[in-house]
Amino acid sequence: MKIRIGIVGYGNIGRGAVLAVQAAGDMELTAVFTRRDPGAIKTDNGITVLPVSSAESMVDDIDVMILCGGSATDLPDQGPYFASMFNIVDSYDTHAKIPEYMAKIDAVAKNTTAVISSGWDPGLFSMMRVLSGAVLPAGETYTFWGKGVSQGHSDAVRRIDGVQHAVQYTIPVESAVNAVRGGAKPVFTARQKIKRECFVVAKDGADKSKIEEAIITMPHYFSDYDTTVKFIDIDELEANHSEMPHGGMVLRSGNTGSKTQIMEFSLKLDSNPEFTSSIMVAYARAAYRMSQEKLFGAKTVFDVPLYYLSEKDRETLIKELL
Amino acid sequence: MKIRIGIVGYGNIGRGAVLAVQAAGDMELTAVFTRRDPGAIKTDNGITVLPVSSAESMVDDIDVMILCGGSATDLPDQGPYFASMFNIVDSYDTHAKIPEYMAKIDAVAKNTTAVISSGWDPGLFSMMRVLSGAVLPAGETYTFWGKGVSQGHSDAVRRIDGVQHAVQYTIPVESAVNAVRGGAKPVFTARQKIKRECFVVAKDGADKSKIEEAIITMPHYFSDYDTTVKFIDIDELEANHSEMPHGGMVLRSGNTGSKTQIMEFSLKLDSNPEFTSSIMVAYARAAYRMSQEKLFGAKTVFDVPLYYLSEKDRETLIKELL
Repeated sequence: MKIRIGIVGYGNIGRGAVLAVQAAGDMELTAVFTRRDPGAIKTDNGITVLPVSSAESMVDDIDVMILCGGSATDLPDQGPYFASMFNIVDSYDTHAKIPEYMAKIDAVAKNTTAVISSGWDPGLFSMMRVLSGAVLPAGETYTFWGKGVSQGHSDAVRRIDGVQHAVQYTIPVESAVNAVRGGAKPVFTARQKIKRECFVVAKDGADKSKIEEAIITMPHYFSDYDTTVKFIDIDELEANHSEMPHGGMVLRSGNTGSKTQIMEFSLKLDSNPEFTSSIMVAYARAAYRMSQEKLFGAKTVFDVPLYYLSEKDRETLIKELL
Repeated sequence: MKIRIGIVGYGNIGRGAVLAVQAAGDMELTAVFTRRDPGAIKTDNGITVLPVSSAESMVDDIDVMILCGGSATDLPDQGPYFASMFNIVDSYDTHAKIPEYMAKIDAVAKNTTAVISSGWDPGLFSMMRVLSGAVLPAGETYTFWGKGVSQGHSDAVRRIDGVQHAVQYTIPVESAVNAVRGGAKPVFTARQKIKRECFVVAKDGADKSKIEEAIITMPHYFSDYDTTVKFIDIDELEANHSEMPHGGMVLRSGNTGSKTQIMEFSLKLDSNPEFTSSIMVAYARAAYRMSQEKLFGAKTVFDVPLYYLSEKDRETLIKELL
């Protein structure tokens, strides 16, 4: 019998989750749940779209709910609501508030398994930070994000007067990455680690030099970084900058005795949301299996043995991949 | 109370394990056990060295035994012997025989926890193969070893007539690595993936061209690879080629929908044995903690949640590293 999946939210992550569930041989998609008018949502392949209010009547029809909402406003409500009824997976990513969020989920997940924060950061990158730190306790861990589109920074540029559209790329400074790879343990300023590149479409008649100045001096978002601004037209932006690539790396520069040991985990993603949802779907499999073993409550990627993630069984993994 | 560690075997891995245990704030080294004459073993820092026969009288004094012997002849006997009395960790690395070895360990580890094959391959690389395959089920996984010294290949060269000493480096072919990083999913021959570099000290009067010919035509070891042979003198070999660096990478080139997603895990190690033993020490901590929770039997890196590996507790990891 296949694992029956529900997906809450049909934005970029939700659409990616549909793809990933359809690609999994051991899962089937029961329905997508939305707060919008289900009839107004265009889907491929005859996916069932239902109002989110109908989910609570389907506790017996769905094994795991994949929550694809955002951390700012959706998940603080949806997480506890769904975890009280369903096994869930989410990608809650407000790092500072994870313990508080986790406690709330844990309090209601009495008979369900809830894997929270299971994207790539938090998620896979967190796993690498723990693994590399445990293996090489003497050392420094570095996380670099990019090259990739940052929605938050793109939005900040779009709010500037005279800007019609904008896309911002976060880019690791190559010399900084190479210094760590070479075994150094530098202390970086923000500027030394990350640079920012903005592609901006100005409104007709807007003062481009004023826009550029507003960007590069913007506190928090840009003033602490080397930022380049390129003005392009809307056609070029749509042709070359409408995808959502991302990536990054976690590096551990460690020492054993007098020796240097470098561990690196890196991602190069053509689609950030499709990758995030692929991780969530693997953890949905884990949530289902753990719930079958009555391992209930709020879990993180630190709590889940890897064999729960794979469609292959444990024996096959040991035989083929160990 | 600290976790009390015993180490079986005092070769390169055993010495690395001593270093790693001494660097761990929550562990203490009870003794190193050897089959040699303990009095003949030179150690630093007043380590206690005992005959391996005395171990069985110390079941109450040691929480985890780290088995640092080899897979060919040591571990097939030592693994089951020690796992019947102690929690153990080993780095059993005969891939094809792991299921059989694991079954033997599991049969005796009734009240102990035994984490087998916990080096970097098998070990960390295996974890990356499972994790990346679960997250990106549509795709190909590539494991590259090197640049590093292969003991087996070095030994093969040393056995050739006229060779006084030799060191062999296994080196990934850069164009192959870059092809995978670029999103291609090539099928490689051995030659396309790995090249080999030999540094050879010839005996006085030996025919160097005959040695070179014997190396590059040697079946299994060299004939399927592009191999370069450089003759150097013993001083240069000892000065520049007496360390045991290694490394390698696991790459997953995967697809979600029409998008390419690349995951990469790589290691650059100045000391292969010290890194391997550092991993084993982290898994010794896990073995101890799992035994406290009565999670007995043979385990692999696929079975161990990451939070068991760290000296930090789960709450701290979630707060600081998730």
